[in-house]
Amino acid sequence: MILTVTLNAALDVTYRVPTLAPGTEHRVEPGGTRAGGKGVNVARVLHALGHDTLVTGFAGGDTGRAIRAELDTAGIREALVDVDAPARRTVTIVSTEDGVATAFNEPGPRVSVEDWTRFVATYHSLATRAAVVVLAGSLPPGLPDHAYAQLIGATATPAILDTAGRPLVAGLAAHPRVVKPNAGELAAATGIDDPPAAARWLRERGAGAVVASLGPAGLLAVTGDGTWRVPCPEPVHGNPTGAGDACVAALAIGLAAGTPWPERLADAVALSAAAVAGPLAGDVDLDTYRRLAPRVEVLDAHADR
Amino acid sequence: MILTVTLNAALDVTYRVPTLAPGTEHRVEPGGTRAGGKGVNVARVLHALGHDTLVTGFAGGDTGRAIRAELDTAGIREALVDVDAPARRTVTIVSTEDGVATAFNEPGPRVSVEDWTRFVATYHSLATRAAVVVLAGSLPPGLPDHAYAQLIGATATPAILDTAGRPLVAGLAAHPRVVKPNAGELAAATGIDDPPAAARWLRERGAGAVVASLGPAGLLAVTGDGTWRVPCPEPVHGNPTGAGDACVAALAIGLAAGTPWPERLADAVALSAAAVAGPLAGDVDLDTYRRLAPRVEVLDAHADR
Repeated sequence: MILTVTLNAALDVTYRVPTLAPGTEHRVEPGGTRAGGKGVNVARVLHALGHDTLVTGFAGGDTGRAIRAELDTAGIREALVDVDAPARRTVTIVSTEDGVATAFNEPGPRVSVEDWTRFVATYHSLATRAAVVVLAGSLPPGLPDHAYAQLIGATATPAILDTAGRPLVAGLAAHPRVVKPNAGELAAATGIDDPPAAARWLRERGAGAVVASLGPAGLLAVTGDGTWRVPCPEPVHGNPTGAGDACVAALAIGLAAGTPWPERLADAVALSAAAVAGPLAGDVDLDTYRRLAPRVEVLDAHADR
Repeated sequence: MILTVTLNAALDVTYRVPTLAPGTEHRVEPGGTRAGGKGVNVARVLHALGHDTLVTGFAGGDTGRAIRAELDTAGIREALVDVDAPARRTVTIVSTEDGVATAFNEPGPRVSVEDWTRFVATYHSLATRAAVVVLAGSLPPGLPDHAYAQLIGATATPAILDTAGRPLVAGLAAHPRVVKPNAGELAAATGIDDPPAAARWLRERGAGAVVASLGPAGLLAVTGDGTWRVPCPEPVHGNPTGAGDACVAALAIGLAAGTPWPERLADAVALSAAAVAGPLAGDVDLDTYRRLAPRVEVLDAHADR
């Protein structure tokens, strides 16, 4: 089982309008409400691929109840911890004429010391039964930067950390097996503009491997087994939201199975592209995945060093 | 007790941003979630003025639960009927730099025949105990245009109808004591551009009185006791959302008390202005109300005919 942790789970509301016209009233259809947050999105991809997954994190209030109900409907198992403060909501307006997304993101509930203590106990019992743990997304207000480090260090289960800023840097102390920043997060966390140098900086501070998603340029992986660049075999058009989460899902599957890095990375690139091609943000197009996976070339980039 | 009926109650989510920039991500603070829908807003104003009020209508699902919880927190009594389909959500983005509001409104739940039958029974027992009934807002999908007419005709309790289009015209058959269209609704329902002529058209088809809100021009009232124009004594700046609902609240209080029309209309104009000046959409600024009420001039407009 792959456990995904979403400390700042969200109820994602998506509205489609022909075009967003500030200052006007838009009639919108309901139905675009889904459980979200990076870890939840990773679990959705794992579930779509038939992998055993379990979602945990915080989900309080009416929004938390709606998050759990939607996961239940989708058939995704969850062990979210109920807290008093309601889970955050995100609202995204997608303009169907040009595909442009406009987002409104709440910061999330304030987590108390009691909530956290209760969560750590739940997490410990779940993580010890997991093959891999994925910790993803921002921390809700009230949690210290080292919250992810505390969770990663609580068990020997291999961990993938996908977060940004200080929680990413603080998390390195607990030796996550893999961290997966995107280009902006990599530069912001390290203060280094050169991706290979920034990735090495993260490894020197405790990351087992760094897989950086560089958008259309594909992945850069700096690992103990080698350094690779993995471009996407063809340009894919669609919604890039969720591509990073699909990448993490592939990395988690590869880590759980012990797949060699080049194969793992090829899968991650193909699955990211499948997320871009997916009909809804967070969905993967399995045809795109199966078509691209055998065509991805993994390029040895050791010389870049 | 004044009963307010909101067949299409909503969970209103309001986010404040400095300026709405399409295609970008906005960090927003939560906390702007309130029960909404015109009848709910009328009840909120009545409650703020210390009047006994009761909210009914439909409120299903998680959104319905959140609507009831918010009313409970606000101290507003409710007898909303729970249904399977979740209540609609509205999202409004207010740009704090220029006050411009951008709204995204869902159509509402599909009401079944069983839901409607159950509601009519509840309504009957509540309306017979009410001094005045206010029926306000759009009809949710699934209800026929004559839904309001059916409710108004079910009891002898005097009714105020604040809706638009075909539900407004169909409602006239049941002889509401007052209808309160705005300028656009008045013209759209009647096909007549001249407000006094359009108001007379509505009276001829069954409305006891027509009070049309003409925005900054104030009110036009065509009643069996006379015709009046009631301008606002001074320009008021703020958010016009909710001004119509405050107007209806004043008309309901006046109808329940049997206040003469001129006094009732002066109160309605002052309370509408107080809603424009209110800190949040739907709130009334009681200082503005008390300051303006004695200064409103009610102009005999019988000659307009």
